Amino acid sequence: MSGSLTIVGLGPADEALVTPEVQAALASATDVVGYIPYVARVPDRDGLTKHASDNRVEIDRSRHALQMAANGKQVVVVSSGDPGVFAMASAVFEALEAGPKFWRTLDIRVLPGITAMLAAAAKAGAPLGHDFCAINLSDNLKPWDLIEKRIRLAIEADFACAFYNPRSKARPAGFVRVLEVLRDVCEPERLITFARAVTTTDEAITTIPLQDARPEMADMKTVVLLGSSQTRLVQREGMAPIVYTPRSVSV
Amino acid sequence: MSGSLTIVGLGPADEALVTPEVQAALASATDVVGYIPYVARVPDRDGLTKHASDNRVEIDRSRHALQMAANGKQVVVVSSGDPGVFAMASAVFEALEAGPKFWRTLDIRVLPGITAMLAAAAKAGAPLGHDFCAINLSDNLKPWDLIEKRIRLAIEADFACAFYNPRSKARPAGFVRVLEVLRDVCEPERLITFARAVTTTDEAITTIPLQDARPEMADMKTVVLLGSSQTRLVQREGMAPIVYTPRSVSV
Repeated sequence: MSGSLTIVGLGPADEALVTPEVQAALASATDVVGYIPYVARVPDRDGLTKHASDNRVEIDRSRHALQMAANGKQVVVVSSGDPGVFAMASAVFEALEAGPKFWRTLDIRVLPGITAMLAAAAKAGAPLGHDFCAINLSDNLKPWDLIEKRIRLAIEADFACAFYNPRSKARPAGFVRVLEVLRDVCEPERLITFARAVTTTDEAITTIPLQDARPEMADMKTVVLLGSSQTRLVQREGMAPIVYTPRSVSV
Repeated sequence: MSGSLTIVGLGPADEALVTPEVQAALASATDVVGYIPYVARVPDRDGLTKHASDNRVEIDRSRHALQMAANGKQVVVVSSGDPGVFAMASAVFEALEAGPKFWRTLDIRVLPGITAMLAAAAKAGAPLGHDFCAINLSDNLKPWDLIEKRIRLAIEADFACAFYNPRSKARPAGFVRVLEVLRDVCEPERLITFARAVTTTDEAITTIPLQDARPEMADMKTVVLLGSSQTRLVQREGMAPIVYTPRSVSV
């Protein structure tokens, strides 16, 4: 049997958000490869070998997965969320392009998943209901100046914004600067949603005006959703408010 | 039993991309509401009433759904893709905000789905693997000038772009202008992917340089993915190429 490589998205955390397509790929895998907490989400069974690795070794992990597929294994690379959004799919293709030519003949597929911003948006209401953008705030893989430029242009375009990886222990200063930039270009009442650990028992969704946002409201389990100038809050007595961006912009 | 309103995403077309969470909501619904082709995707069964309506009546449809939930029904509003991305969630919340106050006490949930751009990106490789934006090209709900402004700013930010609703019979000229704008601000070799009828038997994924793009390559079943300046094409002999955007931007 010839090998295959399938790069799948496990969604944010809740198994009820894993698509049947991804479940089927996992059920027929011989080898599962990925970051430790994501591999841990795949149940053990006979015939399945799990290869868990630490964060920040994405290219090594990708080469390993490609090599196993070249050796005839049915390899599944797992990401949380969607594998094509700040996750493993691009890493695998970087390794593929730089690797031996015969890797290009492999049967490779990407299976989408529910990415964090869409799970978070659903819990908050519909803050991404009009044009929007997704920006990874980590400056591990790009310069800070480019992040700031993109934020300023996104606000000028009046996109709603989803910010991935807003803050980590290794990068405590970045999100401080992001909030400074946002306060420089947005009105103080602009709505911002901190969505932490979405679909887990620790889930917390908080929507506040930008002027009340503090850096410590975000961590690596948080996706931050910034509304456009049109985004609205619907208050509900005794229930969480609903945040949504209307479909229309009038002239 | 008190009523509820659940706004769900059915994904692009393939039932293998419908999450278990959404399947469960459909299984316990008394009433399903939505645009005709999406309601048609829900199997008939005893105890389920289907309310299919035409396009462009989103607010009427939302009011109807809210009223039925207020009357004690278990109502599910269906969208294709994700309900929070150019779909029904914002319409329901617009109707909710403008409607009777007691609608705000209803049990309302949004369940995410696989949105078209992520299904299309997965089929093409990982063109949205770095920062990106999503723009609805229909000028039914916003002025053309805003669409053009957003496209120009998105290119200046060097986002990859997903364009929804690129072209319809009623709006044949819009995508002609979009391509003109793109040619004005992007290099001729910029990669553009036309992803039509993704996950159906009619699926067609075509990636070409911008200079070869023609307006008639898009229709209402197409999502268009424009690469950033960094997006790359990996050729594979006898197989579809892989399009991906690297994770890194070097200085």
